[in-house]
Amino acid sequence: MGAGKGPWGAPVTGHLLRAWRTGIDDHRQPVVYMRRDCPVCRSEGFSARARVQLEVGSRRVVASLSVVDGAWLADGRAGLSEAAWRTLQAQDGQPVLIRHAPALDSMSHVRAKVYGHRLDAAAFDAVVGDIAEGLYSELQLAAFVTACAGDRLDLDETVALTRAMVGVGERLDWGRSPVVDKHCVGGLPGNRTTLLVVPIVTACGLTMPKTSSRAITSPAGTADTMEVLAPVDLDIAAMRRVVERTGGCIVWGGSVRLSPADDLLIRVERPLDLDSEGQLVASVLSKKAAAGSTHVVIDLPVGPTAKVRSSAAAAALGRRLQDVGHAVGLQVVLRVSDGLQPVGRGIGPALEARDVLAVLQGRPVAPDDLRRRALDLAGDILELGGAAAAGSGLRLATEVLADGRAWDQFVAICEAQGGLREVPLAAHCQVFEAPSAGRVTAIDNRLLSRAAKLAGAPNVPAAGVDVHVRLGDIVRTGQPLFTLHAQAPGELAYARQYVEGRPPIFQISESS
Amino acid sequence: MGAGKGPWGAPVTGHLLRAWRTGIDDHRQPVVYMRRDCPVCRSEGFSARARVQLEVGSRRVVASLSVVDGAWLADGRAGLSEAAWRTLQAQDGQPVLIRHAPALDSMSHVRAKVYGHRLDAAAFDAVVGDIAEGLYSELQLAAFVTACAGDRLDLDETVALTRAMVGVGERLDWGRSPVVDKHCVGGLPGNRTTLLVVPIVTACGLTMPKTSSRAITSPAGTADTMEVLAPVDLDIAAMRRVVERTGGCIVWGGSVRLSPADDLLIRVERPLDLDSEGQLVASVLSKKAAAGSTHVVIDLPVGPTAKVRSSAAAAALGRRLQDVGHAVGLQVVLRVSDGLQPVGRGIGPALEARDVLAVLQGRPVAPDDLRRRALDLAGDILELGGAAAAGSGLRLATEVLADGRAWDQFVAICEAQGGLREVPLAAHCQVFEAPSAGRVTAIDNRLLSRAAKLAGAPNVPAAGVDVHVRLGDIVRTGQPLFTLHAQAPGELAYARQYVEGRPPIFQISESS
Repeated sequence: MGAGKGPWGAPVTGHLLRAWRTGIDDHRQPVVYMRRDCPVCRSEGFSARARVQLEVGSRRVVASLSVVDGAWLADGRAGLSEAAWRTLQAQDGQPVLIRHAPALDSMSHVRAKVYGHRLDAAAFDAVVGDIAEGLYSELQLAAFVTACAGDRLDLDETVALTRAMVGVGERLDWGRSPVVDKHCVGGLPGNRTTLLVVPIVTACGLTMPKTSSRAITSPAGTADTMEVLAPVDLDIAAMRRVVERTGGCIVWGGSVRLSPADDLLIRVERPLDLDSEGQLVASVLSKKAAAGSTHVVIDLPVGPTAKVRSSAAAAALGRRLQDVGHAVGLQVVLRVSDGLQPVGRGIGPALEARDVLAVLQGRPVAPDDLRRRALDLAGDILELGGAAAAGSGLRLATEVLADGRAWDQFVAICEAQGGLREVPLAAHCQVFEAPSAGRVTAIDNRLLSRAAKLAGAPNVPAAGVDVHVRLGDIVRTGQPLFTLHAQAPGELAYARQYVEGRPPIFQISESS
Repeated sequence: MGAGKGPWGAPVTGHLLRAWRTGIDDHRQPVVYMRRDCPVCRSEGFSARARVQLEVGSRRVVASLSVVDGAWLADGRAGLSEAAWRTLQAQDGQPVLIRHAPALDSMSHVRAKVYGHRLDAAAFDAVVGDIAEGLYSELQLAAFVTACAGDRLDLDETVALTRAMVGVGERLDWGRSPVVDKHCVGGLPGNRTTLLVVPIVTACGLTMPKTSSRAITSPAGTADTMEVLAPVDLDIAAMRRVVERTGGCIVWGGSVRLSPADDLLIRVERPLDLDSEGQLVASVLSKKAAAGSTHVVIDLPVGPTAKVRSSAAAAALGRRLQDVGHAVGLQVVLRVSDGLQPVGRGIGPALEARDVLAVLQGRPVAPDDLRRRALDLAGDILELGGAAAAGSGLRLATEVLADGRAWDQFVAICEAQGGLREVPLAAHCQVFEAPSAGRVTAIDNRLLSRAAKLAGAPNVPAAGVDVHVRLGDIVRTGQPLFTLHAQAPGELAYARQYVEGRPPIFQISESS
């Protein structure tokens, strides 16, 4: 028996078992495995799905209980999932104090939201605080995400959610202004401009400490693509060293834990394929504010199969981003762009990284659309950050890319982050050809993304789709339209069957 | 390698591992544990959280993958959670065919609902069909439940959901009419009238094959309370035998699988403490329709801390129940009742069962409110079912209870279901006394229910709360108000601390 502070401040005794590492990766959830006949389950009345608090020394974690009838778990042991083991920094055989988890009062706010009520700042602080503490189970996270999706957060609620998300993480201070940043509102496969913009604008002397996310519902996030080329799991101290040396960085926001609640929410949004406006705005801007940015350019690609489907939707989302940005101290400039088709040729971390390198190195095969998008954004940022006069940003960006300064700068950033890496190639490919001759009149970005994901992206970096034709191209019968890349035959077969069972991804009309 | 029918009808090969029973109770979810270095994970690119299909002979189940680094799981083995093991009826060492789960296209309807769109009948059929097949993960179930909560289903959608839920289960046909039924819309602790109504009306010759649910968010469901007195896990054949012999039964709806989708949804609603109007109506009426009922009386208790909080809410819900009932061929009669305070004295399966027995046996300690409620409902049903003339149902019900026919009939039903059982007593109690003298002016049903659940109800049948005073009673200082019952000291302490940390459950004003 051990003693400590209980769920409501009163001293409460707990029970001790000895830590044992199960090696089970329970989707990054903390889980504790206990024998049904162990004294803790018997005396506390724990049953499967109970939420229990585990303590090892001064470290604690709330875990879900899985009850075990089976000899593989020895008497007196608490089996820990990998997430619980790491959070507790446990050693084999160390005593683990186990008791009931605190009551989760903030779930009443989630229920209120489900029933259509507005939440105030205190409610969002309570919910986000409990989420960041790891007190929410995955089911409860799913309920919160779903309740806030479908545009159910108004402006004040979105500001409150954003502030709450900034409030629970680290907030960087670079001791200077401007600190520039950019964000592209997803939905456009292959749109990896960040890896070009950061070296261009930092080569011109601006400070751009970029934290990027991994994919939520897409085949690759910027952090996934950057990770193909250099380590992105940097902590804040390492990130600071990179920025002091080079003026910029491209790291994974999750490892610097600037918005720990967001990282947990994304884990649930991804398998649900849900991504709501309020949470999108809060997710984007909380990370910018926490990263110490002051000036942000946001790219809104618009297209029928992009995330933002109309100019009206772009205007509404843009206004929400600017209003919430203003409320949390960020100057936000918008750029609405064409989101009709994928950018570049690759979809998936390694294939996109290959496109980025081609642009930086000025190779003839470099996708021009990716190059032009990056230059436009870099130009905006150079002007917003005062490194170029109004109207001359694009010209400066173009020069810096053309004369190799951007490439040198990119190499410097990669080296500072831990070293430039080789781009991997997938072991298995499947080419899809045009069934008839004609003009490409439409491309279904969503089906392309889904195929890339079924092929293994982003978890398998080399997996994805390589797109060989663009909107408006004239193709002949049998001309390759796209190629699926996969690391395992099973995944290739899976993605191929999916594509074959769906309407054509490329619409081809008889050319006129 | 093995072959079979793939996700889209095409032949697909899978991989074979040997079944191994982990004994892990993963909250009744099918889970498969596979080593990270096993050939299946490596060649199929499976990673944690992947949804995979497992087949043993002709049985199959979709499971979540947990990846294991650890020697406890032997090479070449697929570790199965209890739910997966039971569904597959696996034997140790039997080959398990493993491949990717089919793509879950119906989730697009769930996302549409999240974004505020109406769903049509085909959409509900697709979602409910996939849920009943076990294709939804718990996260996906949570998203569906949350998206439909908060009154987001209109009449047509509720009808479509109800029909879809009837469509995926068995539907009984008793070859006669009327077949009567009743339902009480929850929120009123201790309201166990079913266990009284069924013996009364079947003793009068009506047919009442009652399927009841286990608790969703309450400390006891009718099935939980009945299970204290007799087995309730009857299959359809056993249920038929009981009804042929006695005219009635009280069994758990989950084991007869009349609404298999509902049983899965309830598993998620319970930990989320969510219970929406549309799903409530669909859940109630789909079970009535599937059970072959034709005439249903629905009790709507109204009170500030009951599930239905106002007469207006009762009227709206009642209308929805009647309209949806009409659409699925059920004649629904409503009874709005007083929901100001708990019914009877006990809250929790065993304590409620004790109250029921006292009423059936005509003992002086029997709670009169429980008795009167049951007689009112039985009277309504006797009239609705044609066993009593209009206006004489209550008199007939009262006679049948008073002269012992109802008790004899209850014993007969329990015996037919597998034998009448003794009511268990809890090992630990804690009495809470009135802090001051005065009149009881309010009782917080929600806090009472929560305390009963923290004490272990309904999973621990003997756990719960015994209420000693009623609204309007005059109490003296130190008079017992209620008693917590728990089987384990930890649970008793947990419930006690919860009560002590909250506002008083009983409002006592100075008596005048």
